[in-house]
Amino acid sequence: MVDRSGTQSPHQVVIVGGGFGGLYATKALGRAPVEVTLIDKRNFHLFQPLLYQVATGTLSPADISSPLRGILSRYKNIRVLMDEVIDLDPQSKKVILRDKEIPYDSLVIATGVSHHYFGNDQWKTTAPGLKTIEDALEMRRRIFMAFEAAEKETDPEKRRAWLTFVIVGGGPTGVELAGAIAELAFNTLKSDFRSIDTSETCILLLEGLDRILPPYPPELSAEAETSLNRLGVTVQTQSMVTDISDSVVTYKRNGQIEQLAARTTLWAAGVKASVMGKVLAERTGVSLDRVGRVIVEPDLSIPGYPNIFVIGDLAHFAHQGDKPLPGVAPVAVQEGEYIARLIKKRLKGETLPPFTYKDAGSLAVIGQNSAVVDLGFVKLTGAIAWLAWVFVHIYYLIEFDNKLIVLLQWGWNYFTRNRGARLITGEGSLLQIEQDARGNYQTPIASGRCEV
Amino acid sequence: MVDRSGTQSPHQVVIVGGGFGGLYATKALGRAPVEVTLIDKRNFHLFQPLLYQVATGTLSPADISSPLRGILSRYKNIRVLMDEVIDLDPQSKKVILRDKEIPYDSLVIATGVSHHYFGNDQWKTTAPGLKTIEDALEMRRRIFMAFEAAEKETDPEKRRAWLTFVIVGGGPTGVELAGAIAELAFNTLKSDFRSIDTSETCILLLEGLDRILPPYPPELSAEAETSLNRLGVTVQTQSMVTDISDSVVTYKRNGQIEQLAARTTLWAAGVKASVMGKVLAERTGVSLDRVGRVIVEPDLSIPGYPNIFVIGDLAHFAHQGDKPLPGVAPVAVQEGEYIARLIKKRLKGETLPPFTYKDAGSLAVIGQNSAVVDLGFVKLTGAIAWLAWVFVHIYYLIEFDNKLIVLLQWGWNYFTRNRGARLITGEGSLLQIEQDARGNYQTPIASGRCEV
Repeated sequence: MVDRSGTQSPHQVVIVGGGFGGLYATKALGRAPVEVTLIDKRNFHLFQPLLYQVATGTLSPADISSPLRGILSRYKNIRVLMDEVIDLDPQSKKVILRDKEIPYDSLVIATGVSHHYFGNDQWKTTAPGLKTIEDALEMRRRIFMAFEAAEKETDPEKRRAWLTFVIVGGGPTGVELAGAIAELAFNTLKSDFRSIDTSETCILLLEGLDRILPPYPPELSAEAETSLNRLGVTVQTQSMVTDISDSVVTYKRNGQIEQLAARTTLWAAGVKASVMGKVLAERTGVSLDRVGRVIVEPDLSIPGYPNIFVIGDLAHFAHQGDKPLPGVAPVAVQEGEYIARLIKKRLKGETLPPFTYKDAGSLAVIGQNSAVVDLGFVKLTGAIAWLAWVFVHIYYLIEFDNKLIVLLQWGWNYFTRNRGARLITGEGSLLQIEQDARGNYQTPIASGRCEV
Repeated sequence: MVDRSGTQSPHQVVIVGGGFGGLYATKALGRAPVEVTLIDKRNFHLFQPLLYQVATGTLSPADISSPLRGILSRYKNIRVLMDEVIDLDPQSKKVILRDKEIPYDSLVIATGVSHHYFGNDQWKTTAPGLKTIEDALEMRRRIFMAFEAAEKETDPEKRRAWLTFVIVGGGPTGVELAGAIAELAFNTLKSDFRSIDTSETCILLLEGLDRILPPYPPELSAEAETSLNRLGVTVQTQSMVTDISDSVVTYKRNGQIEQLAARTTLWAAGVKASVMGKVLAERTGVSLDRVGRVIVEPDLSIPGYPNIFVIGDLAHFAHQGDKPLPGVAPVAVQEGEYIARLIKKRLKGETLPPFTYKDAGSLAVIGQNSAVVDLGFVKLTGAIAWLAWVFVHIYYLIEFDNKLIVLLQWGWNYFTRNRGARLITGEGSLLQIEQDARGNYQTPIASGRCEV
């Protein structure tokens, strides 16, 4: 690009999305001989792996968020733009915002995924998912409000429905949510109410496949299920949800229709690619996979457009192993850093071998003192796995001012089993609840089980 | 009260409102030979004196909130009800909720105050006030979004309006807000933007009377104004706001109409009694003062109803000094504790002398290292006053799990001048902002001054 003075202006990199992929790509280009524009709809980076702790009242939104401008302010070649990309023009090399266009020499798309209800979008309101801070606050409101509503309810059957929580999806998020709600009901809140006994709470985790944590080794899945049972969670596998109303969850288990009266259902089942995948497909002809992720080349670019890259959860990278890389933070981080290296190399006229992911293992927490960790060479469970989980999460909160605060908050919660962040907030939250409470109460016809 | 078995059931105390007055009354009745029902619309006690730190991105809502059930769970004679009192029947001694009635032997009303726009309720949207967590999050959204909008704005005049903040009201809240915004603009955010220079931010504090902090000794008012000027805040006294639009604040100063283009105006001027004052007046004939507060007897009861008490900001107590007691936390706490003592004495057939307030002094923070403190026997300013302020606030966060966390957060912010909690949240916050940004931009006709 040549500017008005006739001198060469720096290579322009536009990065869309400030999640793990976008942020790490941006940071790795700090002080490089390029100008970077990071565009995000939000003004903060979100540490999504801990979102369930906001949803269950352990951490505050700011504990797991960090202002993008704050993280990047020391790099003078990086500009942050709080805005939304609605289209792109790969021929004239521009991204299109609502009221302006931004030219790029290299473009990195890292807009991630959102919930996927498998064609049942009406479940959005009856079974909220967990991707944003607002999602987490809405879950928090519903969880704590359910106990308040139960305390006021005099009909035993309706009270029981308020004390029943169904979590759909047995992946890490579902397992972590179920474990955290169990600790709430059976520990934190156990002396807080006068009319209800929170130890009667039913927490049902439904998974469609034959075991929870399906991407993990089977022995860890079994261990996780045992730990959840010990915490008081009922796990049902091979259970496909067929309907979710305000008060009843219907599912098919081994061909049998079952129903459970539950006022709180949480969605942790499916994700689909963000809308930028579709935009890219329309503008460049790139192929998308079944859930709309962009099928990328070995260097994370898209066919025919060596200067457009897709990274993180939005990318379908199938050049390593027999499955595409999973949608987890370490993959996004490594992809972001790879792209930064690639762009710098290219500017020097050099090349870089294709991207390869170094698997650092996977881990999921089940509850206080209990987690499962698969490091490939070793599998851990129980307290040692929990400590590993804490260590890894603190380590990766490295961007965060509040790493120390989060550690202390965890330490405090650990010893007191308290949850300071269990506020019910939102304009008119009481009124809303009263409407919720009055909502169409429906009685289940086939009875599902929840051992208490 | 005699229950069905014919035995005497315990004295029933109903307390409405879980602020400082209601909470301290409730706690002081823990394990007393009474049954207490604390009714609040929210499930948490809010430490209102620190609300401005949420509004300016230093603390998170949960840092200054504590779940009422958590605080009170160890007292088995106390029941918490998340509900709203809409009426009362002093003849049959019942408070009336939306769907039930609760009988009382003693009733304590502590529902506080809300904003008062002096008959200009249309300013609610153009100049939000600061009483609830939701108010604070809305202020935080507007403050941080104003900088984002300025960064995108290309018209210098409109950009300037985004960088202009007007705070209406020079009491402690106004002074604290103005000081905190100055620190944001001139310290925290100074390297965060690329198109704007945040040191050009204008922060105007308007006060109707002839000095800020009017209830304080004049020398402290003068000191506070000097400190604010040093921080970069323009203070204008004898300035009465006459209109607040989306983009222009109009005010009268020494008989002269002045106008300033400002996209962010914050209300810290007036309060009025909550609606329970009016309900009490209708049902008992008690007199209200000019702002709707209930004029109470020397023992905080209301005339003719020795078992109905009003405490905290809702009470107008004029039996000590030449002015009614101010609406501050220490007054509410002492009133709450007095009522608990009085109820316990009465049950034993004893009496208690009228309520007297022990003034522990007043204090307001201006910014990092600067505050004013009036302890009666000594007046402090500057860094020593700031330390006193920190100490007192930490001490009174005694109910809070998170006292240590808040202290560390403050320590961290103090040394790094960072603000971790500057998230812009709320569903559709970006879209909302774009609408805000497009809003009716109006050019001021008479020009007010803001020295930068």
